Amino acid sequence: MPVAKANAEWRGTLREGAGTIKFSSGVFEGPYSFKVRSEGGAGETTPEELIGAAHAGCFSMALSAQLTTNKTPPDYIRTEAAVHLAATPSGLSINRIDLVTRVKAPGLDAAKFAELAKTAKEGCPVSKALAAVEIHLDAALES
Amino acid sequence: MPVAKANAEWRGTLREGAGTIKFSSGVFEGPYSFKVRSEGGAGETTPEELIGAAHAGCFSMALSAQLTTNKTPPDYIRTEAAVHLAATPSGLSINRIDLVTRVKAPGLDAAKFAELAKTAKEGCPVSKALAAVEIHLDAALES
Repeated sequence: MPVAKANAEWRGTLREGAGTIKFSSGVFEGPYSFKVRSEGGAGETTPEELIGAAHAGCFSMALSAQLTTNKTPPDYIRTEAAVHLAATPSGLSINRIDLVTRVKAPGLDAAKFAELAKTAKEGCPVSKALAAVEIHLDAALES
Repeated sequence: MPVAKANAEWRGTLREGAGTIKFSSGVFEGPYSFKVRSEGGAGETTPEELIGAAHAGCFSMALSAQLTTNKTPPDYIRTEAAVHLAATPSGLSINRIDLVTRVKAPGLDAAKFAELAKTAKEGCPVSKALAAVEIHLDAALES
């Protein structure tokens, strides 16, 4: 199996310093900072946004795999991941991820869909890697 | 604390379908596929590359925090994360991440650096979220 690589560089102190993140695939290189991470904002990514992108992407692909095996492949699966960073006694922690997915898959009933969505949530490699985090799923079919 | 969001869309079956990943910060939107994920390649991201970017970024920022507190802030911290995806009896799994970091921080000795790097590895929010994954760290000072 392939090994996926990515790089980060940080220069200077935590609060006044600045960082850059780079994907080895070549599709992204850009800045990140403690300010956007801890206060929010746009124009820079954060580790939490990257975790959310990984999770939304992995879950959507895993749900497609489930729907494909069920012979009801999706017209679309649209998933948003919201990653919650919290201040805890042991420092900053990612304590919760909310996945919201909306799916169009002709020929599928709601009960079977709910079962397959749950399987995808539990079995996707990123969910398994993030087992230490509370993961909530809101899944619904669209017509 | 802010909530970081990202979105994914998948269309079609696992193997013939295609996906798009989008960051809510607006800095990236691009394709991902099962082919690049399972066989490797460039030009598209993968969930594992995104996990690697999150981890390299988080660890580097956490190490800057340690070095800042130690009053030896870094000129630079350069970290690569390599994320290993493996086929297991329970399906694909992210089973190992290798962090390789090279740091220039004037006034710091190797023993203290090793201690601070270990603390950053164990305490960074992404490491804690990825507690289910074996994480290896190769850390060295550069002059």
